[in-house]
Amino acid sequence: MKDRVAEILSWYESDSPGTRANLARLLNHGRLGGSGRLVILPVDQGFEHGPARSFAPNPAGYHPHYHFQLAVDAGCNAYAAPLGFLEAGAARFAGEIPLILKANNHDLLYSEKDPISAVTGSVKHALRLGCSGIGFTIYPGSAESRTMYEQLRAMAEEAKSVGLAVVVWSYPRGSQLSKEGETALDVVAYAAQIAAQLGAHVIKVKLPSNHLEQPEAKKAYEKRQVPIGTLAERVRHVVQSAFDGRRIVIFSGGAKTEDERFFEEVRGIRDGGGFGSIIGRNSFQRPRVEALKFLDTVIRIYAGDVN
Amino acid sequence: MKDRVAEILSWYESDSPGTRANLARLLNHGRLGGSGRLVILPVDQGFEHGPARSFAPNPAGYHPHYHFQLAVDAGCNAYAAPLGFLEAGAARFAGEIPLILKANNHDLLYSEKDPISAVTGSVKHALRLGCSGIGFTIYPGSAESRTMYEQLRAMAEEAKSVGLAVVVWSYPRGSQLSKEGETALDVVAYAAQIAAQLGAHVIKVKLPSNHLEQPEAKKAYEKRQVPIGTLAERVRHVVQSAFDGRRIVIFSGGAKTEDERFFEEVRGIRDGGGFGSIIGRNSFQRPRVEALKFLDTVIRIYAGDVN
Amino acid sequence: MKDRVAEILSWYESDSPGTRANLARLLNHGRLGGSGRLVILPVDQGFEHGPARSFAPNPAGYHPHYHFQLAVDAGCNAYAAPLGFLEAGAARFAGEIPLILKANNHDLLYSEKDPISAVTGSVKHALRLGCSGIGFTIYPGSAESRTMYEQLRAMAEEAKSVGLAVVVWSYPRGSQLSKEGETALDVVAYAAQIAAQLGAHVIKVKLPSNHLEQPEAKKAYEKRQVPIGTLAERVRHVVQSAFDGRRIVIFSGGAKTEDERFFEEVRGIRDGGGFGSIIGRNSFQRPRVEALKFLDTVIRIYAGDVN
Amino acid sequence: MKDRVAEILSWYESDSPGTRANLARLLNHGRLGGSGRLVILPVDQGFEHGPARSFAPNPAGYHPHYHFQLAVDAGCNAYAAPLGFLEAGAARFAGEIPLILKANNHDLLYSEKDPISAVTGSVKHALRLGCSGIGFTIYPGSAESRTMYEQLRAMAEEAKSVGLAVVVWSYPRGSQLSKEGETALDVVAYAAQIAAQLGAHVIKVKLPSNHLEQPEAKKAYEKRQVPIGTLAERVRHVVQSAFDGRRIVIFSGGAKTEDERFFEEVRGIRDGGGFGSIIGRNSFQRPRVEALKFLDTVIRIYAGDVN
Amino acid sequence: MKDRVAEILSWYESDSPGTRANLARLLNHGRLGGSGRLVILPVDQGFEHGPARSFAPNPAGYHPHYHFQLAVDAGCNAYAAPLGFLEAGAARFAGEIPLILKANNHDLLYSEKDPISAVTGSVKHALRLGCSGIGFTIYPGSAESRTMYEQLRAMAEEAKSVGLAVVVWSYPRGSQLSKEGETALDVVAYAAQIAAQLGAHVIKVKLPSNHLEQPEAKKAYEKRQVPIGTLAERVRHVVQSAFDGRRIVIFSGGAKTEDERFFEEVRGIRDGGGFGSIIGRNSFQRPRVEALKFLDTVIRIYAGDVN
Repeated sequence: MKDRVAEILSWYESDSPGTRANLARLLNHGRLGGSGRLVILPVDQGFEHGPARSFAPNPAGYHPHYHFQLAVDAGCNAYAAPLGFLEAGAARFAGEIPLILKANNHDLLYSEKDPISAVTGSVKHALRLGCSGIGFTIYPGSAESRTMYEQLRAMAEEAKSVGLAVVVWSYPRGSQLSKEGETALDVVAYAAQIAAQLGAHVIKVKLPSNHLEQPEAKKAYEKRQVPIGTLAERVRHVVQSAFDGRRIVIFSGGAKTEDERFFEEVRGIRDGGGFGSIIGRNSFQRPRVEALKFLDTVIRIYAGDVN
Repeated sequence: MKDRVAEILSWYESDSPGTRANLARLLNHGRLGGSGRLVILPVDQGFEHGPARSFAPNPAGYHPHYHFQLAVDAGCNAYAAPLGFLEAGAARFAGEIPLILKANNHDLLYSEKDPISAVTGSVKHALRLGCSGIGFTIYPGSAESRTMYEQLRAMAEEAKSVGLAVVVWSYPRGSQLSKEGETALDVVAYAAQIAAQLGAHVIKVKLPSNHLEQPEAKKAYEKRQVPIGTLAERVRHVVQSAFDGRRIVIFSGGAKTEDERFFEEVRGIRDGGGFGSIIGRNSFQRPRVEALKFLDTVIRIYAGDVN
Repeated sequence: MKDRVAEILSWYESDSPGTRANLARLLNHGRLGGSGRLVILPVDQGFEHGPARSFAPNPAGYHPHYHFQLAVDAGCNAYAAPLGFLEAGAARFAGEIPLILKANNHDLLYSEKDPISAVTGSVKHALRLGCSGIGFTIYPGSAESRTMYEQLRAMAEEAKSVGLAVVVWSYPRGSQLSKEGETALDVVAYAAQIAAQLGAHVIKVKLPSNHLEQPEAKKAYEKRQVPIGTLAERVRHVVQSAFDGRRIVIFSGGAKTEDERFFEEVRGIRDGGGFGSIIGRNSFQRPRVEALKFLDTVIRIYAGDVN
Repeated sequence: MKDRVAEILSWYESDSPGTRANLARLLNHGRLGGSGRLVILPVDQGFEHGPARSFAPNPAGYHPHYHFQLAVDAGCNAYAAPLGFLEAGAARFAGEIPLILKANNHDLLYSEKDPISAVTGSVKHALRLGCSGIGFTIYPGSAESRTMYEQLRAMAEEAKSVGLAVVVWSYPRGSQLSKEGETALDVVAYAAQIAAQLGAHVIKVKLPSNHLEQPEAKKAYEKRQVPIGTLAERVRHVVQSAFDGRRIVIFSGGAKTEDERFFEEVRGIRDGGGFGSIIGRNSFQRPRVEALKFLDTVIRIYAGDVN
Repeated sequence: MKDRVAEILSWYESDSPGTRANLARLLNHGRLGGSGRLVILPVDQGFEHGPARSFAPNPAGYHPHYHFQLAVDAGCNAYAAPLGFLEAGAARFAGEIPLILKANNHDLLYSEKDPISAVTGSVKHALRLGCSGIGFTIYPGSAESRTMYEQLRAMAEEAKSVGLAVVVWSYPRGSQLSKEGETALDVVAYAAQIAAQLGAHVIKVKLPSNHLEQPEAKKAYEKRQVPIGTLAERVRHVVQSAFDGRRIVIFSGGAKTEDERFFEEVRGIRDGGGFGSIIGRNSFQRPRVEALKFLDTVIRIYAGDVN
């Protein structure tokens, strides 16, 4: 099964041994270690949505150690969080799980049509805290996208120069996109392509719907009869759009939803050749025992132990 | 009682010995030294509101040494002020009380709906003046919040790299918040969370009201029946929102008010698990003897010597 | 035939031996090597137009190696692409073909009347990936042109200081130009002049129409009876506008078009003294066998083997 | 009389010996040397108002040496001017009089409601030209004030690090101030406070009227019965507002006015505890003999030789 | 005659020997060498107006070497051009004529009411190309003037630190100036003063008309009866406005005009004490033989060989 990791690492042929080692750490850690699949726990909702909306459903989550421990115990591949949350536990949990510093963040006390996150972390912080990589959100479609791409360019260049991995959250949003368009297949695939061209090692996108947003793109899909009917087909198209599958693409679970529907989506990701999930609110907003059970099911689906 | 300081310092596990030593200086100085509680004297009103509004009520306060001496004599944990006021006394009072350089400031000769302070100090100045930390104001909710978060990111990173503590004034303000919303519980708790995630060691917020501003947050509070009826309960929620109590959260007294009402608020902070107060106008705008008596009462409430 | 390369290099008299060596690499590689003509394969459409519009017509093109191999097998002079595509193949194809890092890019999820691309690459990346040069797009006519010229100034200065060549895509666009004006002869010639004055070694423009956009320029063309009737005449004028032919000017093929019409344009470029073509969509959007045949014809036209 | 200089220097307790030496140079030079009073000649009107408006009344002033010589011969404490004027005479007059490089300037070919000056000098220039300090204008009340404060912060920090003195012109102007408000007592006092908090060693303000601009401030003045009836009282209040008199505050003469009225103002400054005057147009716009006589009277008033 | 050069150099008393040497190179080169007068050939019109408008009248001018040779053969003092044109000939013509790198430029594919040029060159480029100085355009009167002054400040400081001369094109333009006002005497004189105060060694302005634009300035001219009736008087006033004649002020010829009228203007410049002309379109837009004859006449007028 390590062969799969070696194969994946071979795609990152321009990266330093240091960066490839950190990618290997992500791929080899946890219960899915070595399988080429990943389940990552991200906890940036305290910043993004506010503390009560994030942690009141399961107040244990106010405590920064809770999430480190949850990620470790569930056998996740990595834990991703903003500066504060990592500072509050990186020493205690040193070496127990690969960390990703979520280096930019946005809050909801001010919201705008063309969003941009504030850069709240740095490569130096990531090194100081023992992280394996940095995480950075871009909003393709925003009038501010140019600024975000350029911030990412600078930060990713620095990260690569010190052997870190670069994880990009690529979420289309902005004044020229419809709400439906944010998860339209053509738009999500485009967002994956942009992240890949910007030099991301790992790309996180939302699960795509079968909506097609841009007229010119719609024509291309229809003329070439790109299959988009099932979730697996759509996932396959998004993965293909990230260098024909030669970049790690993972999918976010989004808002808390019904378990069975969630598992169905995981099967779609798996069957479409997706590399895994990044699961926040669906895990840490339920009691720990339930969360562990929930993540266990997800991991077993990816591992092929259950359908 | 030193055990409490050791416990608090243990929360800052990612910080250097230098930064922890400066946090220890803040926690161990003055009459509340060692108790885990703090009373800090801040005097930035000359800049923020103008000299006559600030000092005419007690003209001794025009003199920069006055405030150093007041903080020393009252047994405060620290004195915080802008560059000019610190430069005017830092040599005379060297070593007598921990200093915090208030590194950004705003004046009222120009006011805007989405405020941002000017960066008026620097980490180099703080080191040169022998400060234990820097203070920085953010206005979550302002259209300029991104800029402020990024300024804080840079300055806090530099401060930590040279062993200083970072104190963040987190005051929600901006065009998308109602006046009432600036002290709404959900908003104040969110502001505390943001400061914590940005890497603040000490967080200063306003006392929260029982108003809930954001509809989505309101739903969460109501659904989860978060207790918000008493001031102590609200303080507890804010402290919880700052990493489950693992960050020092202190509260500002606001405009000059009746003493008994102020003491009642202090009791609420104490009983809700708040770490202390930052008291400006209520202390330096009254004659020195009265101010010392007033601060004595506050300190005794925190120390548990009186109710 | 090498004499022609020596002659061309003599025009770059202010450049370092390193930069001249990289220009020589471009000029001496591939089937047109030594002829002073170039055919370059650029693949930035995944970023510029989205993956499905770019690669669904020939899905092999989703794979980053496909384009390296196509450029090598067709005998092109160089391959140009954004960071991600180069990172995905630069080690595998090291030394097989000169590479040009396309250092800024624009996507269509947000479009504006006065466009500007995001800087997505760097000179350091170009060196790390073994490139011979950087590519940079400017949009003369955009309200943002000043920013782009200044970005190019900085990046070109750095590139020259480390011996890289500078290739400028000079595409007039902006709120003060009509759609027709973007390819007007006066405007294209002006765009070539601007790129040359900014210090470009290689200039890429669109094929000019016989439209004249700017009234003052129109007067000059008419008064001086500048010949503009045939494509060859217009190409000659554009080449003349780039330092009387002492800068390498190549032309882009634009959208996919009928082959015979394309070849006719190539003959016009050749006969007008143009230095070659940069051919993206017309090559990689058809099956590999057809693409090779198509490029073979283009190259033979430039080589003078066929008319 | 030197005791007064020693006393004044003691207020700058956080400054380096180098900076204190330069302050001493300002205080000890000229006919008022050692008295703690200063008369400074500033000539930036050529930039600020244009050459003819500035120098046509006394054409000798077109020549840059004229002003150096006037300042020397009149026995002023220092001469302040923009880069060009200082470059044109700093070698010829080396060591004859302390120089202040006016480091930002504004012209009237473009005027705006919320003004900001261009930074036209630098600390390096000041050192190269042998200056004792830099001068910097801020416009509190301007929407651009934040930018100016931050420019000043950076430049003052650099100046202090190399032992220069920092002189701040603090002139309230901007869209939220009435014309009358620009010299209102509350506003001028606030401007002095801001400059002091920003770390100025010497503060230059306009003479305040008895108008009170800001409603909240007006209340404070009235409630506390701050005396504002005479010019001396108003000067005293402004000086108090600059750290209770522990910063050097000097006053500008403004537009050319009748001599007797001007001398009356000087007596007001003197009697109110002001530290002196900065006199431009009222001196250099009259013939040299008259200017020397005029400045002689001013200096004698400050020296107490005449009333 | 060398005494005149020594006299001129004595005005630049604050500059390094390196900068004075480069000023001496400009003053001592060509047929006017040693006379204190200058005729400079500038060719930035290809960038500023487009290639056909600039070079179609005399197509030899498309070739970059043409202008070097023209300047050499005509006996000009220097040749000024943007980066590209200098790069294309600086090695071939090394040492044959002093070069000035025109370091910022503007094109007409986008025009705005408040113009600003793009910085397209650098001091490093100027050194690399063996230039004696840099040229920089400011537009006093533009809303962007602050940015331009600050760019000039930085670039001039760097240029002086490495011994280069600084030539400033000071052309009033902007939304608050009338078209007529751009060459009004008061405005041109103000523009000369600003350039001098910004530290320019050589100042290039347009020939002033007898219009007076600004009401306050008009009053000063009328009250002081400044002579403005003849061109020589107006030139004298502009030269006076640049430090009483202690800065080199040269005048631009503007659009192509009738020869005799042009020569009349040259006589006015000469008789008014102007230091010379910078002549672009009137020279390079006519056939070489005619241009040489034209420049010969201009030079002889300045040399006093003819009237």
